[in-house]
Amino acid sequence: MAYIDILGYVAGILVVISLLPQAIKSWKTESTKDISLWRYIIYVIGLILWVTYAAIINNGPVAVMNGVGLVLAISILYLKIKHG
Amino acid sequence: MAYIDILGYVAGILVVISLLPQAIKSWKTESTKDISLWRYIIYVIGLILWVTYAAIINNGPVAVMNGVGLVLAISILYLKIKHG
Repeated sequence: MAYIDILGYVAGILVVISLLPQAIKSWKTESTKDISLWRYIIYVIGLILWVTYAAIINNGPVAVMNGVGLVLAISILYLKIKHG
Repeated sequence: MAYIDILGYVAGILVVISLLPQAIKSWKTESTKDISLWRYIIYVIGLILWVTYAAIINNGPVAVMNGVGLVLAISILYLKIKHG
């Protein structure tokens, strides 16, 4: 794998992993009023399209990364809908 | 442009645009306590690497999309640091 590919993977992993602290925080505090509902609705739709796109062009790593992001984003959206 | 490329662009634009409602909400309410600081610190670092990666591989659209996302993410991070 070329160095440049590693940079792309690290970037993608960081962007996806960054959702984890938000999911943990929202789950622990049960408080989500400062979080934008529309942010996560639009985000989830965008990630569904990303996973679809990656699957169609047969790009496994992109599909997996965005799939993990999708699960985390849906978790945060669920907590937002639950706690308001 | 192939239909499949349009899907990729729409997905990318939605993911980036989704940051806008959060930036507007945080700016208006001046309340960011439910937002994870680490989410935006890791996200900003990831987006800086994405823009760098896209610039190195000469992918203009990806660089521009992630550049816009970076500006929005930095705005939200700034509001989070300001309002706590």
